[in-house]
Amino acid sequence: MVEVDRNGLEVLDRTQCERLLATATIGRIAFTSGALPIVLPVNFWFDGSRVLIRTGRGTKLEAAARDAVVAFEVDDIDPMAHTGWSVVLTGIASEVTDAAHLRQLERAPIARWAPGGNGCVMMVTPELISGRRMNVGGGGL
Amino acid sequence: MVEVDRNGLEVLDRTQCERLLATATIGRIAFTSGALPIVLPVNFWFDGSRVLIRTGRGTKLEAAARDAVVAFEVDDIDPMAHTGWSVVLTGIASEVTDAAHLRQLERAPIARWAPGGNGCVMMVTPELISGRRMNVGGGGL
Repeated sequence: MVEVDRNGLEVLDRTQCERLLATATIGRIAFTSGALPIVLPVNFWFDGSRVLIRTGRGTKLEAAARDAVVAFEVDDIDPMAHTGWSVVLTGIASEVTDAAHLRQLERAPIARWAPGGNGCVMMVTPELISGRRMNVGGGGL
Repeated sequence: MVEVDRNGLEVLDRTQCERLLATATIGRIAFTSGALPIVLPVNFWFDGSRVLIRTGRGTKLEAAARDAVVAFEVDDIDPMAHTGWSVVLTGIASEVTDAAHLRQLERAPIARWAPGGNGCVMMVTPELISGRRMNVGGGGL
């Protein structure tokens, strides 16, 4: 039985959300910096349980999101057909510092497109995940 | 002369950002609710100076973002070609309550896909707008 929310959107369970996260490579991370909300597009890789983002030292993301609660959103929406899905998760962002994990991530598909520079990898472990799917004739955003 | 940021991305000026905002219909709004960051995909319409979003009464967006500072992000990124752009703005979200403005918005292209319900229109007046464009061989996220 499909669960529908108050807006008429299909509610996705955690397994469905995780499956969709694994299909995407670009998401948006939201956090607070200097008391202001910030949202930025990022490349990411979902390793099955955590969101991994490569970023640069000294970036707003690296400085403000480290050890802070962040929200992370991924969607694939067709505005013409009014179909698509979105997944939102909330969790604490931390820097990957474990040497073995970092070595393992060297072979992971987490591109950072910016040329050169000192990079680091931020990891978001989801505490909460929610997802919605909209269908033709059904609900919407 | 094209300005480039520390990550090698082309910096877009306000006019370029506004032009890109006018081409899009789906964005992501980020705000704080119960001390937690939230990011949600929304349909929107940019009227040339303000972002207009139709939402429902009692939604998290309507309740938490009203009269609060929010961040709003729009992008169009091709993850395979490593090209695209993103625009981020920050501003205060308020409900449109002026009757003449609401009548005018009835004819505006700000769809809300969810069926029925009491709607309201939130308006974000940008205080800050910034944009980046990434090109093949250039920088990235």
